[in-house]
Amino acid sequence: MSRSPGRKQENHKISRELFVLTYGALVAQLCKDYEKNEDVNACLDRMGYSIGIRLIDDFLARSGVKKCRSYSETADVIAQVAFKMYLGVTPTVSCSSATGNEFSLILDKNPLVDFVEELPAERASLCYCNLLCGVIRGALEMVHLAAEVSFLQDRLKGDAVTEIGITFLRKPEDRKHRR
Amino acid sequence: MSRSPGRKQENHKISRELFVLTYGALVAQLCKDYEKNEDVNACLDRMGYSIGIRLIDDFLARSGVKKCRSYSETADVIAQVAFKMYLGVTPTVSCSSATGNEFSLILDKNPLVDFVEELPAERASLCYCNLLCGVIRGALEMVHLAAEVSFLQDRLKGDAVTEIGITFLRKPEDRKHRR
Repeated sequence: MSRSPGRKQENHKISRELFVLTYGALVAQLCKDYEKNEDVNACLDRMGYSIGIRLIDDFLARSGVKKCRSYSETADVIAQVAFKMYLGVTPTVSCSSATGNEFSLILDKNPLVDFVEELPAERASLCYCNLLCGVIRGALEMVHLAAEVSFLQDRLKGDAVTEIGITFLRKPEDRKHRR
Repeated sequence: MSRSPGRKQENHKISRELFVLTYGALVAQLCKDYEKNEDVNACLDRMGYSIGIRLIDDFLARSGVKKCRSYSETADVIAQVAFKMYLGVTPTVSCSSATGNEFSLILDKNPLVDFVEELPAERASLCYCNLLCGVIRGALEMVHLAAEVSFLQDRLKGDAVTEIGITFLRKPEDRKHRR
């Protein structure tokens, strides 16, 4: 994660509530547009990806974060710097594989669902916050880290916590070394 | 604007960039959904209205603002308290009518268009930030103030500033008094 700072920006903060309600309007619109939950989920992920590949410049410029040396360090930066900066919360990070490339970001409280009470029955398989997965995936790709990002648990679906899983995909040269 | 504070909330701030990009994704989706700009504008206004009628509770609880005694005071509260709280900017207010019910909020810088460079030719009549008009209209309606809210100038369209016009609609009893 090493890139020189781009444009300097004022650090304008805004209130979360407007964002949360606007995000809700976006999800509601997609639910009107697509009947299938998987299509809404895919669309949110694509939108998030487009946001992530643009947001990374802002993140690197404002955070001053330098190149991470391990997947573990990268996961920590996402949780402790990026989530804090953009959403005002800090998920707990846990490494969920012996191979060291799978991590979980665990949120006790999901800041995006303040005004959402429960998903309607026909939207039970909706990943309401899937935009976040796309944002992480897009941002990581811009620093040459391919990853799969998805919700593993979701309090909106009755789980005890909200958990985002990040699996860093081994690079071809990693695989070569392992042969 | 007198309502007793509702639930107490933590005042989580978030970074504007994620909001701005998410809002951009919303507008882009609506541009996919609707060919005509007026349909996109109307949809953004409707969405904003739905947001405004929910956001007003949060605003009254967190701002501690009490009943305003005049349209002029209401316009000042929108600019100096609400815009500051939710968008981190403070528009200039000007009264644009002798009858005292028309006001302009003038923004030197529109915080929602950071990543937007120019509207494409076929979207020249798009009111990109029309959600804001709906939010103001919805919030005002919840405190029993009917108003028309629309963009009068827009830097995205080459104007020198961005100007939101608010026309408070006289209540029936006002009209009665004037007869």
